[in-house]
Amino acid sequence: MNLETYIRDIPDFPKQGIVFKDITPMLGDPKAFRYCAESLVKLIPQPIDKVVCIDARGFFFGGLLAEKLRAGLVPVRKKGKLPSATIEEAYALEYGDDTLQIHIDGINKGDKVLIHDDVLATGGTAKAVCNLVERLGGEIVQCNFIIELVFLKGAGKLKVPVKSLLTY
Amino acid sequence: MNLETYIRDIPDFPKQGIVFKDITPMLGDPKAFRYCAESLVKLIPQPIDKVVCIDARGFFFGGLLAEKLRAGLVPVRKKGKLPSATIEEAYALEYGDDTLQIHIDGINKGDKVLIHDDVLATGGTAKAVCNLVERLGGEIVQCNFIIELVFLKGAGKLKVPVKSLLTY
Repeated sequence: MNLETYIRDIPDFPKQGIVFKDITPMLGDPKAFRYCAESLVKLIPQPIDKVVCIDARGFFFGGLLAEKLRAGLVPVRKKGKLPSATIEEAYALEYGDDTLQIHIDGINKGDKVLIHDDVLATGGTAKAVCNLVERLGGEIVQCNFIIELVFLKGAGKLKVPVKSLLTY
Repeated sequence: MNLETYIRDIPDFPKQGIVFKDITPMLGDPKAFRYCAESLVKLIPQPIDKVVCIDARGFFFGGLLAEKLRAGLVPVRKKGKLPSATIEEAYALEYGDDTLQIHIDGINKGDKVLIHDDVLATGGTAKAVCNLVERLGGEIVQCNFIIELVFLKGAGKLKVPVKSLLTY
């Protein structure tokens, strides 16, 4: 199955000059959605203790990956969205800047962690999430993406293994 | 398994006087997470064509439910987050008010739709999502929640079958 036919380009979203990779046609197709999940799992070395998924498009496959890997699911969220005690990292991203938080009790020291998001662009978001996981003593096994925009060189910012299903 | 032991009360979040039901301890525990997903699926009449999940905590189980039901996944998102053509509904919620959007091509006329979110509170959000799905010609089979705050009487606002795993 060629998953690229289920990804559509949206010019000038969310800002002028950005071509956004929209995965919603893939989400909406049961066969493509399932094939994407299975293909992601094949990229991931096991065992994994925690799947850390990034607010909000990283949540679509995060739960499914956690279930298939028999791991727990830990959301990283925008500032103010997590209700219990957190640590945070500020970061610059392709479209501006923001702060991400993780629950302090989300990761145990020594947990083998998969970080998952839909798209790797400049790597600012993923780098901040790596920092959060490492500050809590997690061991990052892989940063895992559906799409990697190779021309933005985000993987070079991450000091951990990076795997992406589709590259542009 | 008693899932209630994996839900924690957070007083005064996100506002003074609100007791927030935090599901992150359940997400983080692989057995509880899996048990919750399997228990949700048992509540759902099949077939389902589309699982509509609500931004953002509805996404945690949305993908997993879609995969288990062999359905497509369609996100309803806060205004400005979906990149393609949308319709929208404004709504009042427990903590203020907001606008939700769905992609026009997310639902086909006659699709059998499951709407999923983590918590049913006053029902304002779910009602707005029902309106979006019905405007696109979807047939709502069930509104499905992990937690229902029965004292807020949200289910009475919805003119479709409502099922919740845990009630308070």
